[in-house]
Amino acid sequence: MLRHLVRVRAIARAISSHSIPLPFTFPHSLSSSPFPMAAEDSLRKSLADKLAAVEAQGNAVRALKASGAPKAEIEAAIEALNALKLEKTSIERSLVGGSDTREAFRQAVVNTLERRLFYIPSFKIYRGVAGLFDYGPPGCAVKSNVLGFWRQHFVLEENMLEVDCPCVTPEIVLKASGHVDKFTDLMVKDQTTGTCYRADHLLKDFCNDKLQRDLSLPAHKVSELKHVLAMLDDFSAEELGAKIRDYGIVAPETKNALSEPYPFNLMFQTSIGPSGLSPGFMRPETAQGIFVNFKDLYYYNGNKLPFAAAQIGQAFRNEISPRQGLLRVREFTLAEIEHFVDPQDKSHPKYPEVADLEFLMFPREEQMSGQAAKRIPLRDAVSKGIVNNETLGYFIGRVYLFLTRLGIDKDRLRFRQHLANEMAHYAADCWDAEIECSYGWIECVGIADRSAYDLRAHSDKSGVPLVAHEKFSEPKEVEKLVITPVKKELGLAFKGNQRMVVEALEAMPEKEALDMKAALESKGEVEFLVCTLEKTVTIKKNMVTIQKEKKKEHQRVFTPSVIEPSFGIGRIIYCLFEHTFYTRPSKAGDEQLNVFRFPSLVAPIKCTVFPLVQNQKYEEVAKLISKSLTAAGISHKIDTTGTSIGKRYARTDELGVPFAVTVDSTSSVTIRERDSKDQVRVDVEKAATVIKEVSEGQRTWEDVWSTFPHHSSTSADD
Amino acid sequence: MLRHLVRVRAIARAISSHSIPLPFTFPHSLSSSPFPMAAEDSLRKSLADKLAAVEAQGNAVRALKASGAPKAEIEAAIEALNALKLEKTSIERSLVGGSDTREAFRQAVVNTLERRLFYIPSFKIYRGVAGLFDYGPPGCAVKSNVLGFWRQHFVLEENMLEVDCPCVTPEIVLKASGHVDKFTDLMVKDQTTGTCYRADHLLKDFCNDKLQRDLSLPAHKVSELKHVLAMLDDFSAEELGAKIRDYGIVAPETKNALSEPYPFNLMFQTSIGPSGLSPGFMRPETAQGIFVNFKDLYYYNGNKLPFAAAQIGQAFRNEISPRQGLLRVREFTLAEIEHFVDPQDKSHPKYPEVADLEFLMFPREEQMSGQAAKRIPLRDAVSKGIVNNETLGYFIGRVYLFLTRLGIDKDRLRFRQHLANEMAHYAADCWDAEIECSYGWIECVGIADRSAYDLRAHSDKSGVPLVAHEKFSEPKEVEKLVITPVKKELGLAFKGNQRMVVEALEAMPEKEALDMKAALESKGEVEFLVCTLEKTVTIKKNMVTIQKEKKKEHQRVFTPSVIEPSFGIGRIIYCLFEHTFYTRPSKAGDEQLNVFRFPSLVAPIKCTVFPLVQNQKYEEVAKLISKSLTAAGISHKIDTTGTSIGKRYARTDELGVPFAVTVDSTSSVTIRERDSKDQVRVDVEKAATVIKEVSEGQRTWEDVWSTFPHHSSTSADD
Repeated sequence: MLRHLVRVRAIARAISSHSIPLPFTFPHSLSSSPFPMAAEDSLRKSLADKLAAVEAQGNAVRALKASGAPKAEIEAAIEALNALKLEKTSIERSLVGGSDTREAFRQAVVNTLERRLFYIPSFKIYRGVAGLFDYGPPGCAVKSNVLGFWRQHFVLEENMLEVDCPCVTPEIVLKASGHVDKFTDLMVKDQTTGTCYRADHLLKDFCNDKLQRDLSLPAHKVSELKHVLAMLDDFSAEELGAKIRDYGIVAPETKNALSEPYPFNLMFQTSIGPSGLSPGFMRPETAQGIFVNFKDLYYYNGNKLPFAAAQIGQAFRNEISPRQGLLRVREFTLAEIEHFVDPQDKSHPKYPEVADLEFLMFPREEQMSGQAAKRIPLRDAVSKGIVNNETLGYFIGRVYLFLTRLGIDKDRLRFRQHLANEMAHYAADCWDAEIECSYGWIECVGIADRSAYDLRAHSDKSGVPLVAHEKFSEPKEVEKLVITPVKKELGLAFKGNQRMVVEALEAMPEKEALDMKAALESKGEVEFLVCTLEKTVTIKKNMVTIQKEKKKEHQRVFTPSVIEPSFGIGRIIYCLFEHTFYTRPSKAGDEQLNVFRFPSLVAPIKCTVFPLVQNQKYEEVAKLISKSLTAAGISHKIDTTGTSIGKRYARTDELGVPFAVTVDSTSSVTIRERDSKDQVRVDVEKAATVIKEVSEGQRTWEDVWSTFPHHSSTSADD
Repeated sequence: MLRHLVRVRAIARAISSHSIPLPFTFPHSLSSSPFPMAAEDSLRKSLADKLAAVEAQGNAVRALKASGAPKAEIEAAIEALNALKLEKTSIERSLVGGSDTREAFRQAVVNTLERRLFYIPSFKIYRGVAGLFDYGPPGCAVKSNVLGFWRQHFVLEENMLEVDCPCVTPEIVLKASGHVDKFTDLMVKDQTTGTCYRADHLLKDFCNDKLQRDLSLPAHKVSELKHVLAMLDDFSAEELGAKIRDYGIVAPETKNALSEPYPFNLMFQTSIGPSGLSPGFMRPETAQGIFVNFKDLYYYNGNKLPFAAAQIGQAFRNEISPRQGLLRVREFTLAEIEHFVDPQDKSHPKYPEVADLEFLMFPREEQMSGQAAKRIPLRDAVSKGIVNNETLGYFIGRVYLFLTRLGIDKDRLRFRQHLANEMAHYAADCWDAEIECSYGWIECVGIADRSAYDLRAHSDKSGVPLVAHEKFSEPKEVEKLVITPVKKELGLAFKGNQRMVVEALEAMPEKEALDMKAALESKGEVEFLVCTLEKTVTIKKNMVTIQKEKKKEHQRVFTPSVIEPSFGIGRIIYCLFEHTFYTRPSKAGDEQLNVFRFPSLVAPIKCTVFPLVQNQKYEEVAKLISKSLTAAGISHKIDTTGTSIGKRYARTDELGVPFAVTVDSTSSVTIRERDSKDQVRVDVEKAATVIKEVSEGQRTWEDVWSTFPHHSSTSADD
């Protein structure tokens, strides 16, 4: 039974559920508190870098003055120096500010995202619905770019079989997967008003609040509360209820008494067809659609293993009380891969292509012993068995490449191994790609070796064998252990429970069966745990025969293992927004301007085109370039408003547009790069080609910068 | 109230509902029966073409023989001749066969689609759910290509604002749109078993059956039944119930009595959050997500009109009893555009780019007078006012280009104007792009000028004005008609109905108000229809003042009109499957092989790469080419099985793969085109580039054919 629960909680954790809370968190962080440390480390490093940059720029200014350089050049250098100083101050402030700064930073990002319509609270004119968000035009473009790259990086490069299944799912499928019974969160109700709360949230808030406000708490009380926070995910309904009672926790708004915690199923329920007799649910994940199609997909792949199937689609989760903005939502886009392999051979032919990668990993061992995540070469992690197998290692490497190419900061990305108590009993190994943002370390991708669990569950429920075959070149003589329950004796002994005992006996793994055989032969009887009965029964010698038999076999029939990388697209995008956001002073120095430093790959628009001044000739040139860009499939925007060029740049920087073409003559134009603000002059006819090359990655900006004449900022920059 | 109903039925019709039934259908087809005519015409034309081709090829064979050409060449020509004869025979059979042939053709297409996993009945191992389908790997790729091209053709080229809203929608939004009250089909229940049926389906089946089987029916009865079929969509619940009683229609399986028809809401209902107090629905269309965001999107567009917003996403419709396979499903992908314009200026700057197109149009007039659809230049249709305005005409043209570029046969595509009784009262004009397939003419795209209806509905319900502003350069003196109901008098006269009368008076259009003013002045009273009361009341002179007043205005505030092209992506794809499917004889002539002639743009895989024989050197070359193709982003598949080359070609033809690279040396390879089966020899290093160019449309196959040496089929073809 536990297995379902764990599978489901693992899903929950990986995709749309609670991220690890701040500042007190999972066991591994009790002693090391990795998040604030990492954030602080990273800030201190930035500060050191910035101090060095300030010094270097100071020297440059002095050198320029000494050499009697032109006034404009000196002024430009001073301006750059001032900008650096401002950035330095801002980092210092962050270091002092701590969580206030994190809040302020998040607010700055979120304000920009909402103001520029990266996203919009859904149904806003009707006062919205918690946990539902729209992607507005730039957000939608970013999402479409991320998904496009996902398809290229995984589906196309790995020749995966992509499928597209409906969201509406009949009950039986989710019964088999365990979601109907176990996809729940524990909920308490305000006894008077009926308002619902997540039980663990209330307890967490209580403990955090107590720890932060009550500085006179005795040490043993502090450690008790920290322990509660660490154990939060493992409490049963009864344990949670007891804590809530012990601490006298009441409904936050009304102070009314609360009900006992009880499970609330997180699936949106509906009814298929008009009869009302066919319950259905909106799928909580896309994976099940792949599992139920295994047989067809295996056939499509020429009955060969390994192969991977993939699906991108909406998933739904009826959160009790969504918090954390875009990170915990009621509807989200998942991209999931199910890679089916022979459990006896989990090697991967392309593993060598990623084995040399090195990145932050956080193995179980380090978490338990209170150490921090550390940089480990993937090759070592696999060869030392820290990562269970090559295929799992291969996907970890591919996920790392995927995320960093999108623009996720590699220093704020780590792969954290699941602890034993987080993992389903059938899982061989599981790693989460966690990205650090203002909410802490957020699980954005789960990469699990789920063994044969899912296919077996659907085989059992549907009666359709979901298996693979390995044909032997010639028949093999094999010794097989045959377990034959003696039903008559079992029936006499266990009556109505006979079937459950028979099934449990037949399902024994080889080693357990051999142990039983030995025990029966020596002692005549043995105690045997029947999980489905939740108790131990006594098996006597006459109730079962266990013996090895020789058989000729022509093929091996087995249930494949599945390795499942599962991507929460919305979470990745939100973290990307935080990682690429920065501010810099305006030219006049009177305000901070927002910038998203999106790589071209994900930028919502690759380029803006605008005439320097409103003028028919320039507008015609702008239209010409726009037409070429459209033909080349480069998304862009023309801006013919009369606003100052500086404001127009600021506007596009805030959307993360990497390049701007300014038309200031009819023969050549300037192309400006967003982050460096460098500008080059390019002939009108070449402009679209240069933009295409540099935004599609066939050419770097450095290359463009060294090829074309530079343009001084006086005429066209801010 | 009717307006909601009609809106909703228009949606239903356009996207996921009943196509026009065969063989008896909508009013316009009573006399002309356009579908079978068009199908027959098209077949006769194909037959004439094929006869000419047979004759030409016969002459070619004779000429070759006379000139003493090499034996191989003559044999090839004879083979081609035999193939043409076979195709001719197949068309002749189609012409004779009629509907049986249509059924057989559909079965051949559907078998191929299912066998090759273009689609899979969802949850098949659990015996499936009616109306739910998965796209398997090739189907998923086709869908992704169609959506990618849609984005390129509409969103990118028109600079539309794409948004992405959730499927879960709170009740209030769909209450405003009218779906909660009116998105229904009429249902009857088997009184004993409770099985549900669509009332109109039972009546339709009864009439069709009667007409087909009972050849002794008197003429007046035949015409009555035909009339019923024609009116099917317009019957009220009472009228349908009366017909079912009159004709003694019972439940088809059990022969039990049926209930009276009653409306069944077609939305999947659910509940948002844990309280059970917030009803929600799975959206029945994506459009509402755009309307509720109008204010933000207008602001994002710099408060300028016109602009278009677009959305691609899942929509849901809980069909009572889905029929017609992939055409009527419970979950489907919609792509919708809402183009907002000033109602006083519906011109479109890019209209001239499509004005010269000419295609099959089926205006209201022709339908009513029993004529057939005819080819009309778009320019004429717009200038003569057949199409209401330029913007609507522009989108009709763009839809035509979109569909034909996907591979829809232009001779089986027509734009049918809605009849007055099909259209909502507020709609200015509405055209459906209908595609002919084995089920008849299927509405695949609806293009409607919906005036200001949707924005007004959400303004009213939410209290948030969804309007646009036109600032005047200087204040304008305007004469405005002011309608002032005298509430006291109206209250005395109409008591509880006063409010409804006041609202109706205030809402009068200018012309109606002026007529009323004149009538009140001459006669002292006037009859006035109050829709919300569903009756006429008498308005007396003392109950309202109507007069023109002069005012200074600084801006015009108005609700924009919306022009809505709405695409049923699944329907388009299914029709595309039928239009691109054909069979041709195998080389041995012993079987018919299936081919999808997908354009490269939509082909699921652009290219297969295979070594002619299993051989390490060839496999290395194949891998090299595969790697280049991956780098170029060209989807492809390596096939290293030892199957005969002919079988491998047949396998890829059946998936619609346009090109095949066969490795038969280490220096050069052959590239084969699917439909012509022509082959050229290309150097190994150039192969990937040629495939990229020809599959992305930078180069035609004709060009490749005339550039590279031809390869005789003996070594590598079937």
